[in-house]
Amino acid sequence: MNLEPRPIEFYFDLSSPYAYMASEWIDTMAAQHGRSVNWNAILLGATFQAAELRSPVAHPLKREYSLRDFERSARFSAVPFVLPSRFPVATQNAARVYWWLRDQSAGGPDPAHLLDARGWAKHCFRALFVQGADLSDVARLREIAVEFGLDAAQAEAVWNDPRWKARLKEVNDMAISAGVFGAPFFVIDGEPFWGNDRRAQIERWLASGPF
Amino acid sequence: MNLEPRPIEFYFDLSSPYAYMASEWIDTMAAQHGRSVNWNAILLGATFQAAELRSPVAHPLKREYSLRDFERSARFSAVPFVLPSRFPVATQNAARVYWWLRDQSAGGPDPAHLLDARGWAKHCFRALFVQGADLSDVARLREIAVEFGLDAAQAEAVWNDPRWKARLKEVNDMAISAGVFGAPFFVIDGEPFWGNDRRAQIERWLASGPF
Repeated sequence: MNLEPRPIEFYFDLSSPYAYMASEWIDTMAAQHGRSVNWNAILLGATFQAAELRSPVAHPLKREYSLRDFERSARFSAVPFVLPSRFPVATQNAARVYWWLRDQSAGGPDPAHLLDARGWAKHCFRALFVQGADLSDVARLREIAVEFGLDAAQAEAVWNDPRWKARLKEVNDMAISAGVFGAPFFVIDGEPFWGNDRRAQIERWLASGPF
Repeated sequence: MNLEPRPIEFYFDLSSPYAYMASEWIDTMAAQHGRSVNWNAILLGATFQAAELRSPVAHPLKREYSLRDFERSARFSAVPFVLPSRFPVATQNAARVYWWLRDQSAGGPDPAHLLDARGWAKHCFRALFVQGADLSDVARLREIAVEFGLDAAQAEAVWNDPRWKARLKEVNDMAISAGVFGAPFFVIDGEPFWGNDRRAQIERWLASGPF
């Protein structure tokens, strides 16, 4: 019998402000309750299509509200946040680099590389939502890769490689099969939680189990 | 100089589970901070159209999640909740009765009638989400009106009256002009808050002001 609690599955698109906010607390909260977290970079473009959804900022009225709520919610959580001048942005290149780092140790999980992949996601989130960098700009993304300690040419080769394009597509398909339609999205003990604003429910679940 | 704090504007559709949950805490929270609450019955059909949105349960994937989240969020807040067998339902008749009760004292606000209108809204919310009653069924709504102490024929005359149809339309138009696209929606000191899950932000705003 395996008493090890199952890891939390955490799905994020690097272009989602609420996923960025969640990325700043999920690991700490999980650790406080003896859990690990599997970070899954996905593309909201794919999940939105499956669920017949659009970005909140693509809707009249909801757009104005959302832009205001991003900033207020960040202040509420004391997370540094600037709205990038270009938003939302396509993040497939950064996500492919994520999966390349994540999968580097093909023979089994390698904690160092897992940490690198997570560090890359955090580095990209902060580049976008603290510095306002355009992750969809290839020249800028090369710089961001170098700042993280990667070789720019190697990073660019990764995001142009059909292998990593296919890997990201595979992850998106799996996420959609698991019911993921937005971000941040969490699956804990099989239970789905959508949104940074499910933080209190997640905390109760981790602390005292299903409710 | 008027030091009286402005009332909280609270927008709800009687068919919204999250608005029902919010209706169970907003008055108490407001009173704790010396505020009153203006309840505004609206129709999400109108705001969804303006914002090019659909009900969460009209989307693949999001539907399954939402049905599960309604029940979990109600348990999280310790609010009694059953998902009605027919959901969502059209609530224009119940909403017209709301505005009829709300406006009965044409010469100025009459606390007793305001309370009656609010009592009607709560009665309808509980009929739908505790008893599972179909508010769109005219025969059932007549019964619900009688249970509340209204004359069934008078209530039916109200919801068929062009005057109260126009009044509800006017309120919907005003809500859309104010930026309302969903429910529950709150405007506090000019600041918009959308969703039952903005409860903690609203509490902070009321306790310590803008952040």
